[in-house]
Amino acid sequence: MSGSTFGRLFRVTTFGESHGGGLGAVVEGCPPGLELDPAAMQHQMDRRRPGQSSISTQRKEPDAVEVLSGVFEGVTTGTAIGLLIRNKDADPRAYAPFKDLYRPSHADYTYDARYGLRNWQGGGRSSARETAARVAAGAIARQVLVGVEIVAWVDQVGDIVADVDPATVTAEAVDANPVRCPDPVAAKAMEALIKKVRSEADTIGGSVRCIARGVPAGLGAPVFDKLEADLAKAMLSLPACKAFESGTGLGAVPMRGSEHNDPFSPGEDGIMTRTNHSGGIQGGISNGMPITLRAGFKPVATIFREQDTVDREGRAARIKPRGRHDPCPVPRAVPIVEAMVALVLCDHWLRWRGQTGAQLPS
Amino acid sequence: MSGSTFGRLFRVTTFGESHGGGLGAVVEGCPPGLELDPAAMQHQMDRRRPGQSSISTQRKEPDAVEVLSGVFEGVTTGTAIGLLIRNKDADPRAYAPFKDLYRPSHADYTYDARYGLRNWQGGGRSSARETAARVAAGAIARQVLVGVEIVAWVDQVGDIVADVDPATVTAEAVDANPVRCPDPVAAKAMEALIKKVRSEADTIGGSVRCIARGVPAGLGAPVFDKLEADLAKAMLSLPACKAFESGTGLGAVPMRGSEHNDPFSPGEDGIMTRTNHSGGIQGGISNGMPITLRAGFKPVATIFREQDTVDREGRAARIKPRGRHDPCPVPRAVPIVEAMVALVLCDHWLRWRGQTGAQLPS
Amino acid sequence: MSGSTFGRLFRVTTFGESHGGGLGAVVEGCPPGLELDPAAMQHQMDRRRPGQSSISTQRKEPDAVEVLSGVFEGVTTGTAIGLLIRNKDADPRAYAPFKDLYRPSHADYTYDARYGLRNWQGGGRSSARETAARVAAGAIARQVLVGVEIVAWVDQVGDIVADVDPATVTAEAVDANPVRCPDPVAAKAMEALIKKVRSEADTIGGSVRCIARGVPAGLGAPVFDKLEADLAKAMLSLPACKAFESGTGLGAVPMRGSEHNDPFSPGEDGIMTRTNHSGGIQGGISNGMPITLRAGFKPVATIFREQDTVDREGRAARIKPRGRHDPCPVPRAVPIVEAMVALVLCDHWLRWRGQTGAQLPS
Amino acid sequence: MSGSTFGRLFRVTTFGESHGGGLGAVVEGCPPGLELDPAAMQHQMDRRRPGQSSISTQRKEPDAVEVLSGVFEGVTTGTAIGLLIRNKDADPRAYAPFKDLYRPSHADYTYDARYGLRNWQGGGRSSARETAARVAAGAIARQVLVGVEIVAWVDQVGDIVADVDPATVTAEAVDANPVRCPDPVAAKAMEALIKKVRSEADTIGGSVRCIARGVPAGLGAPVFDKLEADLAKAMLSLPACKAFESGTGLGAVPMRGSEHNDPFSPGEDGIMTRTNHSGGIQGGISNGMPITLRAGFKPVATIFREQDTVDREGRAARIKPRGRHDPCPVPRAVPIVEAMVALVLCDHWLRWRGQTGAQLPS
Repeated sequence: MSGSTFGRLFRVTTFGESHGGGLGAVVEGCPPGLELDPAAMQHQMDRRRPGQSSISTQRKEPDAVEVLSGVFEGVTTGTAIGLLIRNKDADPRAYAPFKDLYRPSHADYTYDARYGLRNWQGGGRSSARETAARVAAGAIARQVLVGVEIVAWVDQVGDIVADVDPATVTAEAVDANPVRCPDPVAAKAMEALIKKVRSEADTIGGSVRCIARGVPAGLGAPVFDKLEADLAKAMLSLPACKAFESGTGLGAVPMRGSEHNDPFSPGEDGIMTRTNHSGGIQGGISNGMPITLRAGFKPVATIFREQDTVDREGRAARIKPRGRHDPCPVPRAVPIVEAMVALVLCDHWLRWRGQTGAQLPS
Repeated sequence: MSGSTFGRLFRVTTFGESHGGGLGAVVEGCPPGLELDPAAMQHQMDRRRPGQSSISTQRKEPDAVEVLSGVFEGVTTGTAIGLLIRNKDADPRAYAPFKDLYRPSHADYTYDARYGLRNWQGGGRSSARETAARVAAGAIARQVLVGVEIVAWVDQVGDIVADVDPATVTAEAVDANPVRCPDPVAAKAMEALIKKVRSEADTIGGSVRCIARGVPAGLGAPVFDKLEADLAKAMLSLPACKAFESGTGLGAVPMRGSEHNDPFSPGEDGIMTRTNHSGGIQGGISNGMPITLRAGFKPVATIFREQDTVDREGRAARIKPRGRHDPCPVPRAVPIVEAMVALVLCDHWLRWRGQTGAQLPS
Repeated sequence: MSGSTFGRLFRVTTFGESHGGGLGAVVEGCPPGLELDPAAMQHQMDRRRPGQSSISTQRKEPDAVEVLSGVFEGVTTGTAIGLLIRNKDADPRAYAPFKDLYRPSHADYTYDARYGLRNWQGGGRSSARETAARVAAGAIARQVLVGVEIVAWVDQVGDIVADVDPATVTAEAVDANPVRCPDPVAAKAMEALIKKVRSEADTIGGSVRCIARGVPAGLGAPVFDKLEADLAKAMLSLPACKAFESGTGLGAVPMRGSEHNDPFSPGEDGIMTRTNHSGGIQGGISNGMPITLRAGFKPVATIFREQDTVDREGRAARIKPRGRHDPCPVPRAVPIVEAMVALVLCDHWLRWRGQTGAQLPS
Repeated sequence: MSGSTFGRLFRVTTFGESHGGGLGAVVEGCPPGLELDPAAMQHQMDRRRPGQSSISTQRKEPDAVEVLSGVFEGVTTGTAIGLLIRNKDADPRAYAPFKDLYRPSHADYTYDARYGLRNWQGGGRSSARETAARVAAGAIARQVLVGVEIVAWVDQVGDIVADVDPATVTAEAVDANPVRCPDPVAAKAMEALIKKVRSEADTIGGSVRCIARGVPAGLGAPVFDKLEADLAKAMLSLPACKAFESGTGLGAVPMRGSEHNDPFSPGEDGIMTRTNHSGGIQGGISNGMPITLRAGFKPVATIFREQDTVDREGRAARIKPRGRHDPCPVPRAVPIVEAMVALVLCDHWLRWRGQTGAQLPS
C-alpha cells in the first residue's frame, strides 16, 4: 500500500506528482443517478489552484478536471469515476541543484529513508499539489451530501486570530478576500503579515476552522471509526497539518464536566444541545448539532534562506531552496479542508445507510 | 462495519461491552516466532484496570487476559491471536433508571440515533471499558517493536501543567504516582485537584503527552496514511479525546518557517535534526528522531449532579447519573495512549517491510 | 494480516485452533434490531459438529456458541458481536509423534514454510475445525437475509452422482440422511462407499451443490467484486475445496452462445430468464433467478496408511497418521457451504443498500 | 465501493469503460527501485489488445499505456503508479438501438437492477475492455516477481481439448498461433471451429490453464485468504469466467486420499512432492511446487442472432445484437489470466514479507 486510498464505501484513490504527467483520482462507491455538476467541481478546483492571488504561489495551473469514466450523459453510473488533472506549468529545473541535499522539514530525507530513492522534482508525491485530486473527489462527495453545508475559513495566521461567529459564517464571506478569513479586519492584517513574511524570505503558520451544518444525528461508528477519529486522520493527512481539535478541543482540558457537558433540550427539529462543546459528535457519532473542528498548520517548509542541512551521504551542507511556494499554507487549505470533511461525512453516510437502511436526504 | 477494526497488516478487531460477557480482541498479522511475555501484557492491563488507586473508579476488575489461540508453546504462530477478558464486577443496576433518558455528553443519544436502540448498561459498546482490549493487543505490538520505547505521561490536569523533559522522562517516573505525572510537584497538585473535583461531584479534563524513542526513519506513507494521520486517528478514537498535536502542534501556528524548520545535522547514528519541532515525522514519514505527540481529553461526562436533558421521546427531563466512573480521564489513559501508539507503529513497520524488504531490529 | 477476515460491510473475523482454548468470531456490521434466534444458530452448529453420525469423525463437541457482545435483550445492537465456542474434546496426543514429520497433502509443511514454525496439534489453525466459527457467523447472516433460502446438498461422493432437481430440493430432504444427499438412492450408495473407504483406511472426495432462492436482482459489483468472484473465494477458502462452478460452470465450455444464453422473458414477479445457465449472476451481479453453484472437494488428506514423506530437515521418512477425521469431507461441508454463501450475500446486500439506498426485504 | 480494487499490499484500482475517455489503473504498494520495462508492459498489452488476429474482434486499439506517476527516471518510487490507456476506436453507435433492450446473458439488465441506470455504450463498465487495465497492472507485478514464470494457454475450445504437458510448456509455444494453444494440432482445429462458429453468427466457450513456476513455498494465508481462494476470486472476476479448478480440481472428487495425496520427497532444491495433485498449494499456502489452475469460460454472450428478450419495462421483445466482439473468449484471455495470477502472487509475496521478514528473490 502506498497510502493513496481513503474511505471505505465512498472511497478515493489518488495518484500523481507535482512535476509529472498529472494528478488524478478514482472515486469508488458514488451513488448512481447523481447529476454531476462540472461547474461546481471546477469552482472548488479554482479555490485551491495556484496562482489565484498575490499571496499564493505564482505557478499557473488551470486545474481542469477530465472525467474519464463513471459518468454517463452527465449522471453518475455508480461505477468507478476516473478523474484526471494534467500538469500544465511543471518546471522541475529549480529542484535539480538540490537533488542530493535534504531541504529541512521537507519530505526529502524521509522519502529516501522509506524508499531508498525519491522523485526530487518539487517533492514528487509529497508535494501539496496532490491535494488537487482530493478537491476534485471531495467536490463529488459534496454533491452527494444533499442538505449538508460545509464551510471552512482561516482562523489564525501567525498570532493574528480572527473573530468569527461559526453559527453565521458563510462561504461568501470566506471567499470575499484572498486570505479566506471572514473577519475583514483580521483578513487585512493577515494579508499584510503574509506579504511581510514573504518579503523576508520566510513563511508563517496558520489554522483553519470548519463547520458542517445539516449533518443528521447518527454518522460515525463505535471504537476505532469514530467520526472525529476519521476527521482527525483526514486533517493530519494534509501537508503541513500538525494539530486537530474537535469541538472545544484543547479548550476542554482545563474545563470541568459541569461546564463542558452539553445539556440536551427539545428543539423544533428534534433533540438539540444547548451548548456545543462536543462539536456535534458524542461517543464518536454525530448528534445533529453542527460539526466543528480546527486544523493547525505549521509554516511552509520552503523558505528562501540559507539553512544547515546534510546531503544524501549524511555530510553537513548548506542549502538555499528555490521553487514556487506559498508563504502561508492556510488560504489555499480552506477548500482542501472542506473536501476532506466532505469525504469523511459521505463515507460515513453510506456506511450508515448500508448497515441500518437509514434514508438520507435527497 | 461496526468500526471495531484497526490497522492494515498488524490488525486488531475488538468486541465487548462494559456489563456483558466480556471483552476481547483478535490480533491478525503478528509476526511468528515471538515469545509472548504474559507478565508484560498483564503489567499493561494492570496499569489500565479500574480500582487501582483512590482517584480512579472503584469498580474491581482483575482484567486477566486469556490467550485463546495464535500462541503455541509460548510463541506466536503467525495466525490469529484470540484474546478474552471476562467482566467480573459488572453491575448494570445503576443504569436501569436512566434507560429512557440521555446522559448529557454521553453516547446514549447518538447510539440511539445511529442504531435505533442501545445497550444502556454502562454505555454498552461506548464504554471506555472497551479500551482493555486495546491495551491487551497493544502489549503484543510493543513486544514486536524491538528497540522502540514508548512512554506517555499526564501532562496537564485542569489548568495544572507539568514540567517534564521529554528527552529524559522514564516509565518508572511516570508510574511513580497514581496520576502518572512524572513531575512530582505537579502530580501532587493534580491529585489534590482530582480529589477536590470528585468531592464536588464533578469531573475535570486533562492531557497526555507521549514520546516514542528508537523508531527508525522510514515509517509512514504518503498522502492519506501519513504516520501522524494514523496517530491522530488512533488518539481521537479514544473515549473523551478531543484534540491531537504532533510535534510542536498548535505551537507551530504562530511560528515562522525559519523558526520551525528543523535543520539536519550529521549524527553519530546517522542523520539527525537539531531541533524536533516536527515531532519525528516529516512528510508523514518518521525521520528517526523521537516521535512526540499530545492528546487532549475533555472532562468525563458522568457528573453526579442533576442536569437538564431529554428522554427518548425528546421531552425535557432532569437526570442525575450514577455508576462508577473516573473523575479525570488521563491517569488511566496513559497506558491506552501507549498501546495505540504501539499499534500504529507496529502496523506501519510491517507495511514498510512488506513493500521494501527493510529489515527491522530484532 | 493472517487471513482471518471476510467481507466488507458485514465482516467476520475468526480465530481459534483445533486443540486450543476454543474458536470464535467477531461479526461486524450486523444490522441493529435483529432478534437473534439462538436455536437457529445452534441448529446450524449441530449440522456441522463432529460426532453427529457414523460417517463423521468421532470427536465429541457440543459446539455451543456463547454470544459475548453485540446482542442486548435478545436483539442485535449494531455493534461488534463476539462469539465463542469452547473446545471440549481436544486431545492433541495423537499428533505428538508426528510433530517433526509432514503429513502428505496437509498444511504441515506449508505452515512451516510460511511461518518457520507450526502448531502441530491437529493442524492448529489449518484444522477444518475453524469452520465452526464460520457457521456461527453465517447463522447470523442467514437471519439478516429475510426472504432468502439457501440450500446446499451433497451432489457427488467418489463417482456416485446424485440426481437432484435444484428447483424443488428442500432443506428437509437434505437433512433426511447422514450423507446430506437428497437423492435417497444415491445417498445409500454414498454412505456405503464412505464406510467402505473408511474400512480400507482411506478417504474419498465429493462435491456440494448449493442454490440460493429469493435473492433480489442487483447484488454484486463490477470488475473485481463480482458476486461469483466472492462466492468462488468463499468456496475455495474452505478446507479441501479445489474447484468452483457458477451456474452451468465447466459445462458451459463446450457450449455455443446460442445454447448458453438465457433469454429474458416477462415473469409474474418481474423479469425472468427462461433458462438459468448463468446461475443467477450476469456481469457479476444477481439477476433475480436462483443462484446456483458447485464446490468440489478433494479427499480428506488424513488416511490411516503408511506413506512416504519427509521430516522437518527434509530427510525421507515414513508416516502413518492418526487422529480423528472424517472419511469424506462433504456431508459436514453442507452447512459450511451454506454459511459462506450467506456471508457473501449478506455483505453484498448491505453494500448495495449503502451505495444506492435500495431497500431490502424485512 | 464499486468493486474496482484488488489486493491488499500490492493493490490495483481500475476505472474506465469501453467507449468512454479511456481506461486506467492506480497501482499502490509497488516496491521501490524497480526498473520498469515499458516494452515488457506493451508486450502484454499487445497480447490482449483487440484486432490482433482474424479470430478476435476487429476493433483497433493500440492500447498504449501512459505512466502518469510513481516512476521516476525509469524506476518505481514506491508511490502510487497512475496508468492511462486512451480509447482510440470507440464507436458506441452500434449500441444505440438497444439502449432500452436487454441483451441476453449480458450485464445490461443486472446493471439496471443494481444502479437504476446503465451506460449502454458497449456495456460500459461491464465491457471486457476493462481488462486492459488489469494487464497493464499485472505487467508491473510480473516484473516484481523475479524468478517466477507464469504461463497460461488455451486448453479447450468447445469440445476440442489440447494435449499439453504443463511441465514443459513455454510462452513461445503458446504465442505461436492466434488461438494461444501450444498443441499445434488442437490449435488448428480450434481456429477452424472458432471461424465456423463465427460464420454461423454464434460464439463458443473455452478454458485456459495456467502454471506458475518458481513460486517459493510460503505464499498464502490461513482461513479466508488461502492462495487458491484469492486465485479463484481473481479468475471468477474475469468476464465470462464461470469455473475454477486448483490442481487436479474436479478431477479430485472421485479420487481416494491414497491416490490424491502428494507424497513428500527430498529434492535437490529442498522438499518436493512426487505428484502435484495439490497444484502447488496445500492448506491455502504454496508448497514450492508449480501452481496449476484452470479457468472455464462460457461462450461470449453477443451472438449476431435474433433472440427473445425484454425491454426496460419488462415487456417481451426481440433483439439482434451488433457491435464488435470475439467469437471465443479464451485466446485473448490468456494474458489476462496471467496478469491476474501475477497480481495475486505479488500481493501475497509482499504480505508474507511484511509479516515474517522473508526475503524474496531479486
